[in-house]
Amino acid sequence: MNLSNRVQNMKYSPIRKLAPFAEKAKAKGLRVLGLNIGQPDIETPELFFETIRNYSEKVLKYSDSRGEKVLLDSFIRYYADLGFAFTHDELLVTNGGSEGLYFTLYAICNEGDEIIIPEPFYTNYSTFADLAGCKVVPLTTYVEEGFHLPGKEKIEALITERTRAIMITNPSNPTGTVYTEEEIRRLAEICKEHHLYLISDEVYREFIYDGAEFFSPLSLPEIANQVILIDSISKRYSACGARIGLIASKNVEVVSSIMKMAQARLCVPTLEQVAAAELYHTPRTYFTRVNEEYQNRRDVLYEGLKSIDGIKVKKPAGAFYLIAGFPVKSAEHFCQWMLENYSLQGATVMMAPAEGFYGTPGLGKNEIRLSYCINIQDLKLAVEILRHGLETYQQLKF
Amino acid sequence: MNLSNRVQNMKYSPIRKLAPFAEKAKAKGLRVLGLNIGQPDIETPELFFETIRNYSEKVLKYSDSRGEKVLLDSFIRYYADLGFAFTHDELLVTNGGSEGLYFTLYAICNEGDEIIIPEPFYTNYSTFADLAGCKVVPLTTYVEEGFHLPGKEKIEALITERTRAIMITNPSNPTGTVYTEEEIRRLAEICKEHHLYLISDEVYREFIYDGAEFFSPLSLPEIANQVILIDSISKRYSACGARIGLIASKNVEVVSSIMKMAQARLCVPTLEQVAAAELYHTPRTYFTRVNEEYQNRRDVLYEGLKSIDGIKVKKPAGAFYLIAGFPVKSAEHFCQWMLENYSLQGATVMMAPAEGFYGTPGLGKNEIRLSYCINIQDLKLAVEILRHGLETYQQLKF
Ligand SMILES: Cc1ncc(COP(=O)(O)O)c(C=O)c1O
Ligand SMILES: Cc1ncc(COP(=O)(O)O)c(C=O)c1O
Repeated sequence: MNLSNRVQNMKYSPIRKLAPFAEKAKAKGLRVLGLNIGQPDIETPELFFETIRNYSEKVLKYSDSRGEKVLLDSFIRYYADLGFAFTHDELLVTNGGSEGLYFTLYAICNEGDEIIIPEPFYTNYSTFADLAGCKVVPLTTYVEEGFHLPGKEKIEALITERTRAIMITNPSNPTGTVYTEEEIRRLAEICKEHHLYLISDEVYREFIYDGAEFFSPLSLPEIANQVILIDSISKRYSACGARIGLIASKNVEVVSSIMKMAQARLCVPTLEQVAAAELYHTPRTYFTRVNEEYQNRRDVLYEGLKSIDGIKVKKPAGAFYLIAGFPVKSAEHFCQWMLENYSLQGATVMMAPAEGFYGTPGLGKNEIRLSYCINIQDLKLAVEILRHGLETYQQLKF
Repeated sequence: MNLSNRVQNMKYSPIRKLAPFAEKAKAKGLRVLGLNIGQPDIETPELFFETIRNYSEKVLKYSDSRGEKVLLDSFIRYYADLGFAFTHDELLVTNGGSEGLYFTLYAICNEGDEIIIPEPFYTNYSTFADLAGCKVVPLTTYVEEGFHLPGKEKIEALITERTRAIMITNPSNPTGTVYTEEEIRRLAEICKEHHLYLISDEVYREFIYDGAEFFSPLSLPEIANQVILIDSISKRYSACGARIGLIASKNVEVVSSIMKMAQARLCVPTLEQVAAAELYHTPRTYFTRVNEEYQNRRDVLYEGLKSIDGIKVKKPAGAFYLIAGFPVKSAEHFCQWMLENYSLQGATVMMAPAEGFYGTPGLGKNEIRLSYCINIQDLKLAVEILRHGLETYQQLKF
């Protein structure tokens, strides 16, 4: 029985490729420190669970396809606090940011249309583009430049008749880069001139360090009609398993066309929506504390990597990832080798080879994405494992 | 800013088309009896909420993309009780049956491939086909025949080079029809001979009345490799807002190709999966009681409709819907007219014109889908409203 060509060409998640080797390491009795995952270890605000426990309806009904009214109201207040005014018809609750991304691409692209995305990018973007039948056109950025964007002409050179949007992740997974106001204005200007949508995936919005400023294209009224925001509570409140995301746009036509798809899939989990609505009341101290923790971790990881001979890395300003260049020919080989052959104090590390985050074949072969979703002590140990593991690996001259 | 042609051609849910008129009726102070919805009013088993309340993890993490192990185990036991053996790699938990349907179509169809579906069918099938880029080829069935399937030749006449599957809903939404063993064997034979998948949407499996037998294509080992089952806890346990569905197939290649899409969307809500796993322990008496209630309702609605002059209806054997032929030119006009102009004892009825459930243009214009998800007393009143409303409407000679 045949499968579609489309699904056959789709890739399994490259982040999980090394999972079998991690399983084997665990079977040997090793602790595997996960520098590969984007699953925060931070506690979900108790308020969330409390609201769930207090739910007293007897029938767990379908929610509205656009989202529970209380949750829409809560998002409206959250954005108002940031200085952005939204109304109900400009919002649509999605099954995580994931569904929002896929719905958006489907709504704005015809079969074969193109989306420009700075690479390296969140790998699942490729699958969402496959599902929506559109093509990712990668805009290469470099570790040496902290993965910041190239000048206007380099970006414009990628625009064709089929280009429908530029899509960014800000702060970025996998690079941790936070775009400057100037970079966002540059993109906005390009989108304005070429009639492109600007899809801004801001699911890591709160994770910004060193007091840096976060600038969203939502601040630019001149392209309000072209900006589509993707949001999620997964990382903001460490509530990944809740599956609550959001599409927001001043372009009501876009949102209401996405409603057609939303109506077909009926709704997003009702209980989590009700609970997520309460998260608006999370005290600011929660974020301060969480960001302090992440910033410390970033410092440990960044300083650690910088102190290892041959590793190229720039200090990332946001999210909880970074990409570093390694003095190896094949990062994938090195990552697998670490899991299979190297341990220190009964532990080894699992990392994500960065090649899978690039759209351009051949790029990122000696780069690795590292996340810092584990505690500081383990992170310190992970750096030492890496330092000594890399040294041993280099002597083997693969 | 342009939208994709695809999304522009997509339809809003026809079931909700009359919603504004219902709102107006409510604003006038009328009760609107919802004969249009598939939202059961039955209580969700308390066990579900209890499990949710007892969840004690501090971090609400992503679940596995295939589904929580406890839930997969629970589904395996549920199917074992029905006589069907499944292993983990033959199952994949989805965001409701909805996501399962869409994923399945995407996995087996190339752009432009065809799926044969008996019409009238669940309207969202059209949108899932649109999303997957495939074409629905309707196989017409008739109210006079209780919406049972035509003979083999009539079905085979629809098969082309591009046909990839026959997709059925059994028991059926919107018709309430339960296919006989002979009908399922007929379909299986056709699928076997023509190398087609047989997609069996059995989300209403438990809702079968008059002691009728339910026969699933899962019982036919000769086409095991071609059967893809779509399941959901939404209706079974009146847990629509939980968003827990399932794809099951002995064809591991199909399931593992769908895993690529599942990995991209990360996971299904974690809490609901843990709670849904416990639902396996729902006592059989729950289903007996629920079915008794639905069977009584069906009898009230069916007998009531039969007693109204000019209405054509066959007794449905399952689910909680039926489609009846009405002595009117336009069922849509009649449904809207009822909401706008007719009430009895302070109440009116909301119904779903059946045209939207047909793929063939022009069919179903004088048919209406009625659901019986409201209590018996209201259902009796609804029948009287219909009886007298129809009488009044006919005198107006539209
Ligand atoms: C950049 C980016 N966007 C979107 C998502 C989707 O997350 P969710 O579907 O949990 O909201 C993720 C998750 O890791 C991500 O890293
Ligand atoms: C025939 C049929 N299939 C699938 C579904 C999808 O339900 P869910 O996504 O809640 O499992 C429905 C819901 O009404 C339905 O009627």
